[in-house]
Amino acid sequence: MTHDVDLGRYAVHTDLALEAKEMAEEAGNPIPGVLTETSEADGIKVTRLEVQNEAGSQAIGKVIGKYVTFEVPELRTHDSELGDKVATRFAQEFERFLQQLSVPANASVLIVGLGNWNVTPDALGPLVVENTMVTRQFFELMPDQVAPGYRAVSAVAPGVLGITGIESSEIVQGIIEKTKPDVVIAIDALASRSLERVNTTIQIADTGIHPGSGIGNKRKGLTKDILGVPVVAIGVPTVVYASTLVNSAFDMMKEHFRKEQGDTSQLMGLIDQLAEQERLALVKEVLSPLKHDLLVTPKEIDQFIEDIANVIASGLNAALHEAVDSSNVAAYTH
Amino acid sequence: MTHDVDLGRYAVHTDLALEAKEMAEEAGNPIPGVLTETSEADGIKVTRLEVQNEAGSQAIGKVIGKYVTFEVPELRTHDSELGDKVATRFAQEFERFLQQLSVPANASVLIVGLGNWNVTPDALGPLVVENTMVTRQFFELMPDQVAPGYRAVSAVAPGVLGITGIESSEIVQGIIEKTKPDVVIAIDALASRSLERVNTTIQIADTGIHPGSGIGNKRKGLTKDILGVPVVAIGVPTVVYASTLVNSAFDMMKEHFRKEQGDTSQLMGLIDQLAEQERLALVKEVLSPLKHDLLVTPKEIDQFIEDIANVIASGLNAALHEAVDSSNVAAYTH
Amino acid sequence: MTHDVDLGRYAVHTDLALEAKEMAEEAGNPIPGVLTETSEADGIKVTRLEVQNEAGSQAIGKVIGKYVTFEVPELRTHDSELGDKVATRFAQEFERFLQQLSVPANASVLIVGLGNWNVTPDALGPLVVENTMVTRQFFELMPDQVAPGYRAVSAVAPGVLGITGIESSEIVQGIIEKTKPDVVIAIDALASRSLERVNTTIQIADTGIHPGSGIGNKRKGLTKDILGVPVVAIGVPTVVYASTLVNSAFDMMKEHFRKEQGDTSQLMGLIDQLAEQERLALVKEVLSPLKHDLLVTPKEIDQFIEDIANVIASGLNAALHEAVDSSNVAAYTH
Amino acid sequence: MTHDVDLGRYAVHTDLALEAKEMAEEAGNPIPGVLTETSEADGIKVTRLEVQNEAGSQAIGKVIGKYVTFEVPELRTHDSELGDKVATRFAQEFERFLQQLSVPANASVLIVGLGNWNVTPDALGPLVVENTMVTRQFFELMPDQVAPGYRAVSAVAPGVLGITGIESSEIVQGIIEKTKPDVVIAIDALASRSLERVNTTIQIADTGIHPGSGIGNKRKGLTKDILGVPVVAIGVPTVVYASTLVNSAFDMMKEHFRKEQGDTSQLMGLIDQLAEQERLALVKEVLSPLKHDLLVTPKEIDQFIEDIANVIASGLNAALHEAVDSSNVAAYTH
Repeated sequence: MTHDVDLGRYAVHTDLALEAKEMAEEAGNPIPGVLTETSEADGIKVTRLEVQNEAGSQAIGKVIGKYVTFEVPELRTHDSELGDKVATRFAQEFERFLQQLSVPANASVLIVGLGNWNVTPDALGPLVVENTMVTRQFFELMPDQVAPGYRAVSAVAPGVLGITGIESSEIVQGIIEKTKPDVVIAIDALASRSLERVNTTIQIADTGIHPGSGIGNKRKGLTKDILGVPVVAIGVPTVVYASTLVNSAFDMMKEHFRKEQGDTSQLMGLIDQLAEQERLALVKEVLSPLKHDLLVTPKEIDQFIEDIANVIASGLNAALHEAVDSSNVAAYTH
Repeated sequence: MTHDVDLGRYAVHTDLALEAKEMAEEAGNPIPGVLTETSEADGIKVTRLEVQNEAGSQAIGKVIGKYVTFEVPELRTHDSELGDKVATRFAQEFERFLQQLSVPANASVLIVGLGNWNVTPDALGPLVVENTMVTRQFFELMPDQVAPGYRAVSAVAPGVLGITGIESSEIVQGIIEKTKPDVVIAIDALASRSLERVNTTIQIADTGIHPGSGIGNKRKGLTKDILGVPVVAIGVPTVVYASTLVNSAFDMMKEHFRKEQGDTSQLMGLIDQLAEQERLALVKEVLSPLKHDLLVTPKEIDQFIEDIANVIASGLNAALHEAVDSSNVAAYTH
Repeated sequence: MTHDVDLGRYAVHTDLALEAKEMAEEAGNPIPGVLTETSEADGIKVTRLEVQNEAGSQAIGKVIGKYVTFEVPELRTHDSELGDKVATRFAQEFERFLQQLSVPANASVLIVGLGNWNVTPDALGPLVVENTMVTRQFFELMPDQVAPGYRAVSAVAPGVLGITGIESSEIVQGIIEKTKPDVVIAIDALASRSLERVNTTIQIADTGIHPGSGIGNKRKGLTKDILGVPVVAIGVPTVVYASTLVNSAFDMMKEHFRKEQGDTSQLMGLIDQLAEQERLALVKEVLSPLKHDLLVTPKEIDQFIEDIANVIASGLNAALHEAVDSSNVAAYTH
Repeated sequence: MTHDVDLGRYAVHTDLALEAKEMAEEAGNPIPGVLTETSEADGIKVTRLEVQNEAGSQAIGKVIGKYVTFEVPELRTHDSELGDKVATRFAQEFERFLQQLSVPANASVLIVGLGNWNVTPDALGPLVVENTMVTRQFFELMPDQVAPGYRAVSAVAPGVLGITGIESSEIVQGIIEKTKPDVVIAIDALASRSLERVNTTIQIADTGIHPGSGIGNKRKGLTKDILGVPVVAIGVPTVVYASTLVNSAFDMMKEHFRKEQGDTSQLMGLIDQLAEQERLALVKEVLSPLKHDLLVTPKEIDQFIEDIANVIASGLNAALHEAVDSSNVAAYTH
C-alpha cells in the first residue's frame, strides 16, 4: 500500500497484496520472500500470503506482513446462505490471524469504520460499525457482571476529511488516547485493478492502513507506528478506476490473442510493446476528457455494500467473542 | 431506441440520438434526413435534432421524431447555481417542445418515473416523481377554485418488474385508462456509450420509451401506439456498460494516435482493422470473466442522481405551469 | 372502519375491531352478534373475531366480517427470534383465513402497499411490497416452467394523493383491470387509540379498506364493491392521535382510582361524569393550540417499522406459496 | 439541565430554560435573578434569558448562564422562505452570542453533532454536521491561502454509546486534545414538556450539555469543566414524553376550566389538588402498561428534522464565517 508495484515496468496501484503478487508474476519477475498458501471450499477461496522480507516487499510492492484474502465470485448474487458461510469462514480465519499476532483473547478492540456515509461505495466502514456488537460500555460500567466469553469492543466511524475537516487518523488517535484499546481493526473500501474483484474479495492485513490507500483521500495512515497499537486492516474493493478497467482489458485481450494465436505483436501493434507504465499513462491521457480519473462501481452497489458489510460484521462478532456461536453468525448482527 | 446503430459495421447500443448520429458520422456514413441545430451558453449546450424520414432513421438507428439534448459537462460538480440555470433552460426548451407537439397549455399531464427506488442509478424516475408538483387532485375535487396558470399534473412511479411482478407499461396503461391524461411524460435512466455523458446529459424525445431501452429490463415500451396518448421521454445516462467503456477507449486511443502520427495501423495492429462490431464482440468476450456485462456508474452516484432529479423536477414544474416563475425554478421543488 | 364507535356515548375512532369491541364493553353495552375466540402462546395472542350481523356491527361500529388480531407486546424489542415466530404464526393464520374465504390455493394475488415512502410511520405498506416475493412475471412469461407450490403474486405501492395527484384506489382499479388478480391484499398503517398497540398489533380483516381509515387521507376505499374482487386488509397501528392518548390516559386513571378506592367521582370531579364523546371534544379543544391534532409515534419508529414489515412480508411469502417453508419464513425475505 | 425544576412542588424535567421559567411562574413562585428580553418579527419570537445568580438558578432549576430561545410555531409547515428567515435570524443572534462570550472572530470551532443517525428524531446533530461547511483542513494544509472572512471550523458526529461503546464526551475529549479548538458548539435533540414545541423551538445556551439532558442516554456532559474550552449548546425539542404530554393536557384543561368558570375544584376533583409532582407520578403509574415511558414524536418527523437541521447548519455557516452572506444563508448549505 505504501509503494505501488513499480519495477521499471509497473506502476499500477492496487491495495490488494494478492493482486500485486499476480501482477508481478505476470510481468515475469522472480518473487522471492513471498509465501502463499491457498485453500478452497464452498466457492470460497482463501489465500494466506506472507511478505517475509524486504526482497519480497520490493518484488510485489507491499510492506512486510501477513495478508489473508477471501475470493468469493458469487458474493454479488445476494445469496444469504453463501453470505453466512463466508462470515463463518471469515470468523475462523480472523481468530487465527489475531492468535498469530499474539493478541490475547481478552484484548480490548477498537473497530474503526473508515469512509463516507453519504457515498455508497465508500460507506462500507461506517456500515460495519453500525452492525457490530459493542460491549466496552458494559466493561466500563459493571465489569464484574459481564458474562464470560466476551471482550471489550468499541466501534467508531470517524468520517472523512471533507465532512469533518479533521484527518481520520487524528480523530482515531484522540479516541485511542482516551480509551486505550489493545488493538485496532480498521475497515476500509478499496479501489481494485479489476472489476470482478469489486465486492467479491476481502483482504485482512496486519500492516494497518497506509497513506494513499483506499478510495477516499487519506493522507495520513493508521499504522502501529502512528497509533502505538497493532492495526489489523480489513479491506474490500468496491470501486475500480476507469483507467485500470481499460488497461486491464488490454491485458485480457493480449492473453486472449496469445491463447488463440500464440503471437500478439501483429494483432496489437505497438501497444503490445509498450511498457505497462507507459500504456497506463497513455490510457489516462486518452481518458482525460473525463476530467478526472473516474472511479466506477457496479450499478447494484447499494445491495452489494449492505451484503458485504453484514458478512464482515457477523464475522467480527463471532471472531471477537467466544460466546458468539461461529456456526450461526448471522443471529448476532442487527 | 428500437433498433441499434447497425449499418453492417455498427452494433453499439445507445439510447441517445445525438450519440447515435455522432457514431454514424465517425463511421463516415452519409447522414441524410437528420437535421441538427446547436446553441451554447453558460456551459449548457443544447442540440435540437430531428430524424425526418426513414432514411435518417436508418442512418442513425433512431426512430423518426424530435430530440433535444442538453450537454452540461460541469453538471457533476454539485454547483447549485449551474443547476438552476440548467433547470431554467430545460423549462424553456420543454415548453417549446410541447408547443411543437401541439400539446395545449391546459392539457393534463401524467408524469411516469420509471426505474427502481432501491438501485441508486436507476432511481432517477422515482426521484423526479417525488419532487414534482402534482395538482390533478385539486382539479378533481374543486375544479372551480384552482388558481389560473396551473394545469392538472399527476405523477406515478410504477416500479420495476422484479419488485412488482407487473410490466411498468401495464401499470401505466391501467392508470391512463382510469385517469385519462392528455399526454404522458416518462422519465428514465439510460445507459450511455461514454462515461463522460453519465449524469451530464439530458435527452427529451417525442418518441416515447421503446422496448430494450434504459437500464432496467423493459420488455414493453411506453409509446403512443401502446398508450393512446403522446409520450414525451426524458432520459439521462446514469450508467455505462463496462464493455462500451473499454471499446470507446479504443476509439479515443485511435483518435489520439491519428492526431499525433497520422497513422494508427502500426500502433494498434489488427485491432485497428477490426470492424466496430467485431471489436465490441471481442471486448465482450475478453470481459466475460466478469460473468455478466456489468453496468458501472461513478462512485458519487448518490449525489449526482439527486442533483439531476432536482434539475428535471424544477424544470418540469416551470414548464408545465405558467404560474411557476421559470426564472426561479428551484423555489417550487421540495 | 366505515363508522366510528358511536352509541350515544362513543365517538372515538379506531381502525381495530378488537379495540372497538373492548370500548363497547367498557361502556357496558351488550354486544350481540360478535363472536370472539382467543388463543395465546409464545407471547403471541391471537383473537379471531366475527361480526356476524347488523346488530353486532351496530354494537361495535365495525362492518360485518371476519377479523383476526395478533397482539405481541414484545414485538418492539427488536428480538429476531420472536419476529420469526410471529411471522410463522401469521402465515398459518393467514392461510386459514384465505381458506375460509374460499380463495383457492392457486388464486392469483395482488398485494397493495398503501402509504407514503417518505413518512416513516406511513411507509409500512411500501416496505412490505419491497420485501414480498413476486412471481406473476414467471407465470406470464413461461407458465409451464414455474415450479409447483407457487402461485402468481404481484405487488404495487400506489403512493399517496399528495405525491401522485391520484387516489390510491383509482390506481389500484386501473392495475386490477389490466392484470385481473383473483384477490387483493391491502397493507396499511393505522392510527390506534392506545400507544401500547403501536407496532405491537396486526389485524387481518376480510372487509377491505374503508374510506377514512388508516393514517393517510384516504377518501376512497379499497373494497370488493369498488374493486370487484375480495380484499383482505392487513393493518398495523403505527401512530396514535395526541388527543386519544390523553383521553385514554383519563380512562386509565379512572380505572386506577376505581381499583384503589372503589369510587372515582370525588377524585376526578365532573370530568368523570362527562360522556366519552364530550370528554374527547374537551380534550381536543384543550389541545387545539397544537394547531392540528397531531399524530404521534414512538421515537424508535424507524426500527419498529422495518421489523414489522419483515414479519408481514415473511408471513405472506409463507402463506401464499406452499413451496415456502413456513417453519423458516425469514429465509425468503430480502 | 443539571437539576430538574424541583421546588417542593415540581419535578418535571425540561431541557429548555424558557419552559422552566414558565413552569416556575405558573407555580406562582417568585423568580429573582432571571432576566428576559423578548422580540418578535416575521413569526419568529426570540427570547434572551439570563440566569444571573444562584437564586435564579434555584428558582427555575437551570444553571447560571445565558440562553436564547427561538420560537417559530410555523416552522413545521415546510415553508422554505420562513426557513431562510429563521436561519438568518439565528445567524445574527448566534454571532452576537459568541461576541458576548468574548469568542474572537478567528477562534477555531469544533461542531459536535450528538445523537444517533439511525433514530430519526435523534439524528438532528449528525444531520447538522453533514450540512455545515468545514474549513479546518484548509487552515492546516495551506494556511496562507485561505481567503479572508473564514475561520477554522471542524465538525464531528461521535455517535451514541449503544453503537460505539464509548461515551460521546470521551470521544469529543480525545478529538479536542488532538485538534485544540477554541470553542465547541454542541447540537443535540431534546425532550420537551409540550408537543407544540417539538421542532418549532431552538435554544442556544452557554452552559454546555449537562448529564441527563437530551433524548439519548448521556451520563457524562460536554461542559467547559470537562472539555477545557467554552461549550455553546444548541438544542431542539424533537420528542415529548407520553407522560408529560398527558400531564400538560391536565394543565391545559385546568386552565380551560378556569377561564370558563373561574373554579376548577368541582370539575377536576382531587386531581386538581394534587401537587404537580404527585400528579406526574400518578400519570406515570397510570401509563405504566406501556412498559417504559415512551418518547413520542410527530409522524412527519423525517421532514421536520431535515428542515430544522438545514436551518441550523445554514445559520451556523453564516454566523461563523464573515464571508458567508447572512442574507442568503441557504446558498452555502449542501
